[in-house]
Amino acid sequence: MPATDLPFSQSEYDRRLALVRRGMEAAGLDILYVTDPSNMAWLTGYDGWSFYVHQGVIVPGQGAPIWWGRGQDAQGARRTVYMDESHIHGYADALVQTTAAHPMQDLARHLTDLGGARARIGVEMDNYYYSAKAHAVLEEELPEATLVDATALVNWQRGVKSAEEIAFMRKAARISENVVQLALEMAEPGLPKNRLVATIQAAQVVGVGEDWGDYPAIVPLLPSGADAAAPHLTWNGAPLQRGEATFFEISGCYRRYHAPLCRTVHFGPPPDYLSRASDALCAGIEAGIAAAQPGARACDVANALHAELAKAGIERNARCGYPVGLSYPPDWGERTISLRDTDQSELKPGMTFHFMPGLWMDGWGLETTETILIRDSGPAETLCFMDRKLFVK
Amino acid sequence: MPATDLPFSQSEYDRRLALVRRGMEAAGLDILYVTDPSNMAWLTGYDGWSFYVHQGVIVPGQGAPIWWGRGQDAQGARRTVYMDESHIHGYADALVQTTAAHPMQDLARHLTDLGGARARIGVEMDNYYYSAKAHAVLEEELPEATLVDATALVNWQRGVKSAEEIAFMRKAARISENVVQLALEMAEPGLPKNRLVATIQAAQVVGVGEDWGDYPAIVPLLPSGADAAAPHLTWNGAPLQRGEATFFEISGCYRRYHAPLCRTVHFGPPPDYLSRASDALCAGIEAGIAAAQPGARACDVANALHAELAKAGIERNARCGYPVGLSYPPDWGERTISLRDTDQSELKPGMTFHFMPGLWMDGWGLETTETILIRDSGPAETLCFMDRKLFVK
Repeated sequence: MPATDLPFSQSEYDRRLALVRRGMEAAGLDILYVTDPSNMAWLTGYDGWSFYVHQGVIVPGQGAPIWWGRGQDAQGARRTVYMDESHIHGYADALVQTTAAHPMQDLARHLTDLGGARARIGVEMDNYYYSAKAHAVLEEELPEATLVDATALVNWQRGVKSAEEIAFMRKAARISENVVQLALEMAEPGLPKNRLVATIQAAQVVGVGEDWGDYPAIVPLLPSGADAAAPHLTWNGAPLQRGEATFFEISGCYRRYHAPLCRTVHFGPPPDYLSRASDALCAGIEAGIAAAQPGARACDVANALHAELAKAGIERNARCGYPVGLSYPPDWGERTISLRDTDQSELKPGMTFHFMPGLWMDGWGLETTETILIRDSGPAETLCFMDRKLFVK
Repeated sequence: MPATDLPFSQSEYDRRLALVRRGMEAAGLDILYVTDPSNMAWLTGYDGWSFYVHQGVIVPGQGAPIWWGRGQDAQGARRTVYMDESHIHGYADALVQTTAAHPMQDLARHLTDLGGARARIGVEMDNYYYSAKAHAVLEEELPEATLVDATALVNWQRGVKSAEEIAFMRKAARISENVVQLALEMAEPGLPKNRLVATIQAAQVVGVGEDWGDYPAIVPLLPSGADAAAPHLTWNGAPLQRGEATFFEISGCYRRYHAPLCRTVHFGPPPDYLSRASDALCAGIEAGIAAAQPGARACDVANALHAELAKAGIERNARCGYPVGLSYPPDWGERTISLRDTDQSELKPGMTFHFMPGLWMDGWGLETTETILIRDSGPAETLCFMDRKLFVK
């Protein structure tokens, strides 16, 4: 029963596989074992909330990739991947969350069957879901193979988006705009924050028109007042307060593709430091977008931003962006390039970034951000359309 | 600025730390490094969506635990943990997602400062977010220390819930009932599935009365018809169909505590095989609950269930449950005991399980489940109150 609702064309999957094979060749790999659920989906179409058990995609030297995971999730693979039954391997449920045996023993047998016993096998050493134990078991089971760190090998191939992918991100951007707009409209002093989140999450999933919403890789983040100094706090049931700023860090998600968008709202006349910071931030974003041209480097964007912030006396040390696209929890970034002063990576047409210059200061915070697309020439395009300012109600 | 909204009493945190210290002593550990976000929160109160970067809690031989993570998330730690500033360590943003250096180098320095250079240090080898690379860097930086696999050491201490924890789970159960009830009422042929999910997610976050809803560790799962053979598919925008069964696998979440509840609805007269399977499943759940008594073993519950299913000719191989309580994505299970025929773990009063005998068959699926609490004597208590049957509309 082959998947009938693949998000992408076969030629798109072929393109991706060819890119990865080129990466494998450059790294001298015979086989690549991919654990990152985003990489698994990007290569095969696999889509399921099963990444809490050991699973992966095997890319052999030739032929289609092989999905490997828990037996009951092989049912999900049959419904979501483009490969046929011979490329789907489920392991026994007795291997799940037990100390008596380990799923990687089963993987090692498959790799051996594929001629991997003495091969150079790439593994994603620093990706979520590839645990230290998984690696240790694989090393023990394949004593004559060479396990090579191939962290982000696939992620780097994902950087430049195809036309099909950009179309998905534009759909995600429509959802992002809609959700942030709704949050700005609905937010008011006295509204319990969880009630606002309920509306936000519902709108994320409803989507826009025919384009139904998928679950974003990060829940809505919307800290207020002093809590906004901490970027990753989640909500509670406390009411929004007059005299406080709240930022919305939110993304729409269309078939696992993201286009994050952040805006900040203040109830009542904002303090002068906040207005000035917002002005500097908006000038910095403008400068960063102007710098985000093909051939420029990641650091150019960060430097352009920080120069504008410095004019307002704001020193900012955190990175100010990362590539976005297809993602699964816990992160919607691609974990390759960072927009920071030390990153010399070249920007190329088709790359997409969450340009994310959040300010998390002593006792307050402010986020105004854009998802940007590097064009064939000139400044980057913002995928969302929304006024760039501190909203005041 | 100490946290002002800790979910639990200080004596509860003291109790937990004492339990973990006992576990460390039994394992001969000088220091324990905890990566699992659930374990971090259980030990310290830490709560934030920051588990996509390297972070953890250090439990030294004496004194309070130490929160360690990204500098900007130390702000979140200051707002959520019970320890004072001297027990919060943030690392530089330059260490985030770069190949030039690794956060675990910073951790190694802290462990050395704590006298860990030659210590026996427990690490959670097979937990999410403790990557193979993290382990390799720690080994390299602490060549004279002994890194010991302490996977699930903390998780095992979490098994028996305190009165404070059970009170949270009862609140989560009220949310679960409310959400599943709403889903059953709203579901009808023609309704796009994402619209149903939007309502479900909103209700999860609104909560019940004063008890606001937190984000569950797993998104709503509700496959229909043939897709219900695959337990972990997420939604799409297709309409619900007459003649198909849809199961709802859902949990309310109150301050990170879960009480999952699953029910199945069929539109139109159900086929005979489905009705008979549901009857057998309900008889099996009844039998399993009766077997879930203090002093019994995990396998007794599985065997009682499977005996009833066998009478109806249903062979079931997957495990049928796991402990639940505090959790972060990607899983709401505790990953210790499994309710399966090979697990001899003793059931103790205060333990809580998602008794989860889902049927994922060839071309159809059915889920009716309960979160159960092992009592001081007699059969287990179900935390949710809802008719146990195949719902027909």
